[in-house]
Formats: sequence, structure tokens, C-alpha cells
Amino acid sequence: MSFDDRLKADAALVQARLDQALAGLADVPVIHAMRYAVQGGKRLRAFLVLESARMLGVEEARALPVAAAVEALHAYSLVHDDLPAMDDDDLRRGQPTVHVKWDEATAILAGDALQTLAFGLLVDAEVGPAEVQVALVKALAGASGAKGMVLGQALDIAAESADTPLTLEEITALQAGKTGALIGFSATAGALLAGADPKPLADYAAAIGLAFQIADDILDVTGDAATAGKRVGKDEEAGKATFVSLLGLEDARARAAELVAAAEVALEPYGSRAENLIAAARFTIARHS
Amino acid sequence: MSFDDRLKADAALVQARLDQALAGLADVPVIHAMRYAVQGGKRLRAFLVLESARMLGVEEARALPVAAAVEALHAYSLVHDDLPAMDDDDLRRGQPTVHVKWDEATAILAGDALQTLAFGLLVDAEVGPAEVQVALVKALAGASGAKGMVLGQALDIAAESADTPLTLEEITALQAGKTGALIGFSATAGALLAGADPKPLADYAAAIGLAFQIADDILDVTGDAATAGKRVGKDEEAGKATFVSLLGLEDARARAAELVAAAEVALEPYGSRAENLIAAARFTIARHS
Repeated sequence: MSFDDRLKADAALVQARLDQALAGLADVPVIHAMRYAVQGGKRLRAFLVLESARMLGVEEARALPVAAAVEALHAYSLVHDDLPAMDDDDLRRGQPTVHVKWDEATAILAGDALQTLAFGLLVDAEVGPAEVQVALVKALAGASGAKGMVLGQALDIAAESADTPLTLEEITALQAGKTGALIGFSATAGALLAGADPKPLADYAAAIGLAFQIADDILDVTGDAATAGKRVGKDEEAGKATFVSLLGLEDARARAAELVAAAEVALEPYGSRAENLIAAARFTIARHS
Repeated sequence: MSFDDRLKADAALVQARLDQALAGLADVPVIHAMRYAVQGGKRLRAFLVLESARMLGVEEARALPVAAAVEALHAYSLVHDDLPAMDDDDLRRGQPTVHVKWDEATAILAGDALQTLAFGLLVDAEVGPAEVQVALVKALAGASGAKGMVLGQALDIAAESADTPLTLEEITALQAGKTGALIGFSATAGALLAGADPKPLADYAAAIGLAFQIADDILDVTGDAATAGKRVGKDEEAGKATFVSLLGLEDARARAAELVAAAEVALEPYGSRAENLIAAARFTIARHS
């Protein structure tokens, strides 16, 4: 199966699991908005959960609620990020954002409940032993809270009102939180499920997380909105420091490629079993959206 | 020790645990706002966790992270509820709300990270066996998400744009979610920690949760802002159906008193060991804020 086909197959699996988790709830706008917010997207985080689990021999049924959890968590962060008080985006995955389609209150609550859903999914009985569920809750809380994703967003906001643009070191720290931490959770989830050493997967994730963000900055300069499914050119417009503004386009591309190579090295212990994760690493810098 | 003194002592314990959980984080406004948002309040939910645990012989150290978790979860819900797109409140616990003191983006992110913190606290090693931690995560996710607290808030928003005011049945369902679910989690946490039957505590919590909300509606009519620490009279101003508008002040008081009596009956199996929880039931309708 090609990487694209596998990505699509995993996306379908995780969508079905999310649909199941969101079935039978009340008929109110907040619930409709939750269902809307978990549609579409590349599902890279779910792919990392499912493929890291497969690589380590974990049954798919155990990994699926975890993959759904990380996508619910990611969806919550996008819904809140898009709010007028935050990035004020009206387009996401090629569709109107939740607060545009409904309203701000609905977007705030839908995001809140998606975060709750994520933690609820991690303690699904299918995930396996209680010790594993606890390890996953601990890891997701660490990756997404005030030491992880939210910290990254907080640093991002602080940067907007700062007098001087961020340095390369600062922007690297910011992105390690904002996107890196959740990618790290996703890739190491397979090891937590298998009870295996998470170190190689953590190293892999650190490299692709940063590569992913550099590629995002490159897309913001070189992409078009129709392909990206979201507004582009907004970093430059806002005068924000990015990997492209700090390194230049060519050096940013070279750095991203180096990181993908480092990700491949990190997975050498797994030999050919790592091929899907290596394809994902290459995808992070080859994508167009 | 009097009920007031015990409430204060438990509040101090849980504040120390929250301070510990929020120590050593980054020096950014979102983190400052998180610390600010977990200050003050009656700490009734933490009291219910700690006292239900004590009643069932659970060590305080095991219950404390759970008490801190429920207060962090409650604080997140208040920060988001107070936002301009939601209830648009500028006063909370006698202090400016988070979005007034900082800004909306900071309030959204601080609330988000407080929810994450709540789930992170439930998997603190001190809580005990992994099975207990998993049961607590499951219970908190159920109480606070799209079947619990957020559903109650969603129903509340839907009611505002409805053509006809809510019926008594509808407002009871709304409040069962909005405040009842988290009170239910708090009171049954002791049973989950002890591995005991949660049924008597769940019955107790259902009764005091509703009594608490009826008392809130009464306070909105009879209270003053200085004592309540928040704006009063706003339900009537907004033309919202409340237990007072539906039942009248006297019948609302009588219903709340019946519920407190029912809460006492639910705890009969525990005899005199339930005295602190019974005092809390009486407090829900005797308080002035």
C-alpha cells in the first residue's frame, strides 16, 4: 500500500472511531460543532499513533481510541486557535471555522468538550491495562497543557506584542510546544501501548515535529489558499518571525531535509518495520497543505 | 471543628496542592492567569472529595490531587463561562474576571490548560492504584464533557434564543449537567478512591446539586453583589427561566429544603461518619454567596 493510501485508510479508521464516540449525544449546536470540527485534515497524528503501535506489534483495536483521542485534542486546539480573540481565522481545512459557521460561544464549548473527549477516549477499556491508560493520560496531559501545546500558544501570543522578533532558539522552543509536543505524544503512544522504550520514537518525533513546522512556514510563503485549505501569507503580513524569515527559504528547506534524515536515523533499530513512519517523515516536508 | 472551619481548612489544603501543581511553570501571562483563576471560592467541590474520602477511610494524601483536579476543572469552566461570548461577566469571587484582568486569548488558553491540569492531577501517583486513577478519569470526563457540564452549558445557551422559557423539567435537566454533574463527581470520588459502592453518595450529590442551584437562583433575586462576589439580578434582567421564576420564592425555598432532607436520608448508611457531608448539604441552601 502506498503512503497516501495508508494515510487515507488510517484516516477513515480514526474518523469511524470519532463518529462512534460522538454518536447518541444531545441534538444541540455544540454537539453538531464537535462532529464538524473532527472532520477532515491529514490525520497525521492519528497515523503516527496507529503506525507506531503496528510497528511494535500492538493490536489496532487498542491503538484506535488513542488515535481518536489525539485527533480530538488536536481538533479542540484548532477550534480555539481560530477564534477571533486568537488567530481570527475564518477558513480551516477548506471550510468555514466553527465560530463562523455557528458562533463564538459554540466554538468555545465545542473545543472544551473535545478536549474532555480526548481524555475520555484514553480510558476506553479497549486500550488495555489500567497502567497503560494512566501512562497515556499522563503523557497527553504533559504534551497538551501548560508545559506543552498551550505553553507554545502562550509564547506565540507573547511574541506578537514583543518589541523584537523571536530568535531561532525562541521560535524553536515555541514550536516544540505548539506542534511538537502533540506529535511527540502521537509517535510515542505506540511504545506506551506496547510497554516498549519510547526513546527512539521520541527522537523521531522531535525531528519530524520541527520539520513539520518549518514546512508549514515554507507553505505560508509558497502555498496558495485553495491547496492549503487555509489562509496563507499571514505570517509575513503580521510581521511574525518564522523559520523562513530567520533562515531564508533555501536554508529552511535544507534544515527540514536534515531533520527528516535525523528522524530516519532514530528509527534504525526497527529496520524495515519502520517504513511507514519513515514515509510519514518524508511526507511532512513534501506536503502541499 | 465547626463546618465553616473545616471548609476553610480543606480549602487551604487544596489551595496548597494547586499552588504546587502550578509551581515552576513558564513566566507568561497564561500561567499567571491560571494561578489567579484557582484562587478563592468556597471550594465546596474539593470539600466533597476530601470529606467523602475521609468518611470512607481513604488517606488524605490520596484524595488531595483529586480535590485539586475538580477545583481546576471548575475554575476552567468559570473562566470560559465569564468570557464576553458566553455570560460576559466582569466580576468573579469579588475580583475582575480573567479576560478583564488580561485579555480574551489569555482567558481561553488559561481555561484550556486548567482542564488539562485537572486530568493530569487525577493520574498523580499519590492517588493510588492505576485502576482507581482510570475510574476517576472516566468519571471526570463523563461529568464534565458533552454528556455533563458542557451539555448543561449548551442547553443554557440554546434556552437563551428559544421562543418559550424553559419548563421546570428542562431547567432541572440543564442544571443536572451544568452544576450537578461535577458535584456528583466530587461526592462520589471518595467511593471511587475507597473502591466502595458510589450509590449513596451519588444520591446525596444529586439532591445537593439541585439544592445548590435552586439556592443560586434565590441568591440572584435576594442577594447583593458585595456579598455574592458577582453580579446579581441578571437572570431576571435577561428574562431567563429560573427555579424562582417557575416555582416562586417560597416554593423554591421549600423544594431546596426537601432536597437537603433527601440528601441526609441518602447518607443514613454511614451514620455519624456522614456529619461533615450533612453539614455541607445544609450549607448549600444557607450560604450567602
